[in-house]
Amino acid sequence: MLDKSLSKNMLSKNKIKFVKSLELKKNRTETGLFVAEGEKIVPELLLSSLDVTYLAATSIWMEQNAHLPLTRCAETDIVSYDELKKISFLKTPQQVVCVAKIPTYPLRVSELTNKLSLFLDTVQDPGNLGTILRIADWFGIEDVICSHETADAFNPKVVQSTMGAITRVKVYYENLEEILPEIKNCGIPIYGTTLNGENIYASELTSNGIIMMGNESKGINSELMPYLNQQLFIPFFPEDQKRSESLNVGVATAIVCSEFRRRTGH
Amino acid sequence: MLDKSLSKNMLSKNKIKFVKSLELKKNRTETGLFVAEGEKIVPELLLSSLDVTYLAATSIWMEQNAHLPLTRCAETDIVSYDELKKISFLKTPQQVVCVAKIPTYPLRVSELTNKLSLFLDTVQDPGNLGTILRIADWFGIEDVICSHETADAFNPKVVQSTMGAITRVKVYYENLEEILPEIKNCGIPIYGTTLNGENIYASELTSNGIIMMGNESKGINSELMPYLNQQLFIPFFPEDQKRSESLNVGVATAIVCSEFRRRTGH
Repeated sequence: MLDKSLSKNMLSKNKIKFVKSLELKKNRTETGLFVAEGEKIVPELLLSSLDVTYLAATSIWMEQNAHLPLTRCAETDIVSYDELKKISFLKTPQQVVCVAKIPTYPLRVSELTNKLSLFLDTVQDPGNLGTILRIADWFGIEDVICSHETADAFNPKVVQSTMGAITRVKVYYENLEEILPEIKNCGIPIYGTTLNGENIYASELTSNGIIMMGNESKGINSELMPYLNQQLFIPFFPEDQKRSESLNVGVATAIVCSEFRRRTGH
Repeated sequence: MLDKSLSKNMLSKNKIKFVKSLELKKNRTETGLFVAEGEKIVPELLLSSLDVTYLAATSIWMEQNAHLPLTRCAETDIVSYDELKKISFLKTPQQVVCVAKIPTYPLRVSELTNKLSLFLDTVQDPGNLGTILRIADWFGIEDVICSHETADAFNPKVVQSTMGAITRVKVYYENLEEILPEIKNCGIPIYGTTLNGENIYASELTSNGIIMMGNESKGINSELMPYLNQQLFIPFFPEDQKRSESLNVGVATAIVCSEFRRRTGH
């Protein structure tokens, strides 16, 4: 049974204002909090190691999800669907919205030595970042290291588009130029996709390393290029007839990760 | 030099209304027209075999693109940037907007015999369809056959997201259930991605065939499943630890097309 003391019918204006304020990166940075919503991601968050600080849901959702560790939330509101809509960022709100602490991890470069990791240099579109985090999750890539110019992974749109991957993949924001020398010192191979790279299908790939993906229109920053051990290219078809200029960065990430795992991971 | 008679400063209300009306599928179907905009796709359209019926651009764009076959347009308006904004569907309008005829192709199944083609069963998200058309373009897949329930490729959002692929890839809307028996009769192998399929990396793939991709949440319609010769699955990693439920349909299409071309196309 639900604890009746949790039950409220209205959300205070301050609470609505607070949750909605988390749409802005400035406010997320200041509070260290982000918003996640819906039947898929909220249960995953509650079952993850992340801190859920607030949860608002309809009574139907609360009853159907009584098996979840709801006591992990510091504060819970049971509200009508109409009330819930007031704090939702979705066009079609679902039955539950929560606020959780943005996880921060210290980056220990030496721990990347035996793994495959992604480096994102100025991937600016939130949709692309969400897609990439979902790909990382599928292919068991635990660490995604983003330049400060990359979109914010805790933007509500990115959180939703990761389909729960955000609860499993570790996202770091770092100055890539500062950490790349350390990566090199550890002897970790650094791969990057470029339009002048060699055919990835015919390249030697290692089971560990960094895969660097660049900006949607400019590719990898020229200042980072000297750190690459190997430039990779996804061949178009037919080989003698180039039709498009490039692949979308999410699509390219998918193909490269698939190729690494196919060759070295199984 | 530009023909001064083309020059106008204002767009009539009727013209604005007409261009904007093409946002709706109903109006595109009725008129057989669609809208494309921007520095990338408009030149590609003008250089393609498609019919461009109307073009509005700033004088700067007209001067910079005087080498294009602009006389192919039945009607041209040179307008200020503020006027152009009135007929644009973009948040940040570019310097040119055009209207073109929706190309329709008769589908001849026998012509698919020696090629790789995509079948899309109820891919509903316009963004996913745009991504898939761009992937098809990269991998030289000339024909994308969509079920009637699939998003409309001539939706302004899809057109823009294809980055010009819409001028090269042929898109058909068909009743897939009706044409699949014919495909089978022609002996064309039919592949589909499913969550119960066999490891694509270890499967035998042919250089020709149909790759069928299903709906974002439901996958391939159960009525179409009996037509599949082979069900394929993209393995997650590590093999003993499934973390996500599925990959996005655009991402899955990218990996499958890459694997077909890697194995059989080069």
